[in-house]
Amino acid sequence: MEIRKGKLLHEGKTKKLYPTNDSELLIIHFKDVLAPSPGKKKTTVKGKGAINNAISSLIFQFLESYHIPTQFVKVLKTDEMLVKRLEIMPVMGIVWNFATKSLNKRFGVTKGLPLSCPIVELFVKNEKLKNPMITIDHACAFGYGTLEEMQDIDRMIRKTNAVLKSFFERRELELVDLKLEFGRADGEIFLADEISLDTCHLYDIQSEEARNRVLLPDEAENMAKIYESLKDRICA
Amino acid sequence: MEIRKGKLLHEGKTKKLYPTNDSELLIIHFKDVLAPSPGKKKTTVKGKGAINNAISSLIFQFLESYHIPTQFVKVLKTDEMLVKRLEIMPVMGIVWNFATKSLNKRFGVTKGLPLSCPIVELFVKNEKLKNPMITIDHACAFGYGTLEEMQDIDRMIRKTNAVLKSFFERRELELVDLKLEFGRADGEIFLADEISLDTCHLYDIQSEEARNRVLLPDEAENMAKIYESLKDRICA
Repeated sequence: MEIRKGKLLHEGKTKKLYPTNDSELLIIHFKDVLAPSPGKKKTTVKGKGAINNAISSLIFQFLESYHIPTQFVKVLKTDEMLVKRLEIMPVMGIVWNFATKSLNKRFGVTKGLPLSCPIVELFVKNEKLKNPMITIDHACAFGYGTLEEMQDIDRMIRKTNAVLKSFFERRELELVDLKLEFGRADGEIFLADEISLDTCHLYDIQSEEARNRVLLPDEAENMAKIYESLKDRICA
Repeated sequence: MEIRKGKLLHEGKTKKLYPTNDSELLIIHFKDVLAPSPGKKKTTVKGKGAINNAISSLIFQFLESYHIPTQFVKVLKTDEMLVKRLEIMPVMGIVWNFATKSLNKRFGVTKGLPLSCPIVELFVKNEKLKNPMITIDHACAFGYGTLEEMQDIDRMIRKTNAVLKSFFERRELELVDLKLEFGRADGEIFLADEISLDTCHLYDIQSEEARNRVLLPDEAENMAKIYESLKDRICA
């Protein structure tokens, strides 16, 4: 069956979502727009959508080869991905290999401290409540997910991090942190959304400033060049 | 060996700590003072120290009978308890059976919602950092405790809650939430500090207002009477 794109279903900051003529499939369109930092205005970066789509598609396929179920079905266009329709979970996961950003602030530890073991954090996606941190207990008690689903999510976060750490190390990049989203379909949990330069931070092992510098998306200048060169290293 | 009290080691809001002539033992003295609420001044409640000592001693002994190791050694005076000297852990635990107070606020759920399963929360005791919430991952990565210690603590919190829920139910009281502290000695984790009317909230099952009213320490008036009557019900 040929896939036909329907009318816009939802528009987010960096992506658009479309239904298709197959009720179980959706199309994610990656926009040429940087995820806006608080207080800064929207920046267009030509080619960024195609770059994040290429990276995300590659990583999802790589994770599938390690038996981690993902939403990915296939690449449709340079900036469009065909995905499984999921019931998106109200919970997101962050895994840290270094203490940077909010982790560094909350615990008053040395900036960039390499962690002896990864730290997994779960949050409810509720901006009104300021996305409070949760454990599996909260998720079960408040109905964000069942015990089995949350245990699956915890295992998937840890496995995805381990697999991607090696993936990036082989490209002389160090995975600093990673944000993951989830959805359910047919009684199973899938990695959802994207895994791209917008949802992780990387250190450049080749760089002299390595470990002191988070590559992306903190860089303000030459964003197009940086995205392009990282895409070349990651998808090589 | 007769126990002799040394010079004041530490004075907290509601307790004083003394060394003894036995280097492995300390004395906890319970003061006749209410735990101060932010912005309110210190209130003296005559007999409160003896009440919390009686309740805490009884509960610690009850938990020991369920093979939960506690700091308690014996009652010395009505307001003094002899305890094992521990290396106090920088982590505290709260377990919730109902969504009240900060849990209610953080998650925007109905006030007083009975939880389908208890929620255990761990926090670092660091007022400068505003006691941030942690998981076992943070504790291991930042050295607050080993994996084995943190797993012990998690199990102890859940078991203590289960045992005390029944303990209070038999007294027509419902355990709303409970704060627990921990310490290590001889490679083992012990419940530390106190388990008293200052560290838990109770609903009165007998009361018509039951489930809408947290008994203590929210009551402002007749505090001495309330402490006394609850002590009678708990220690009966």
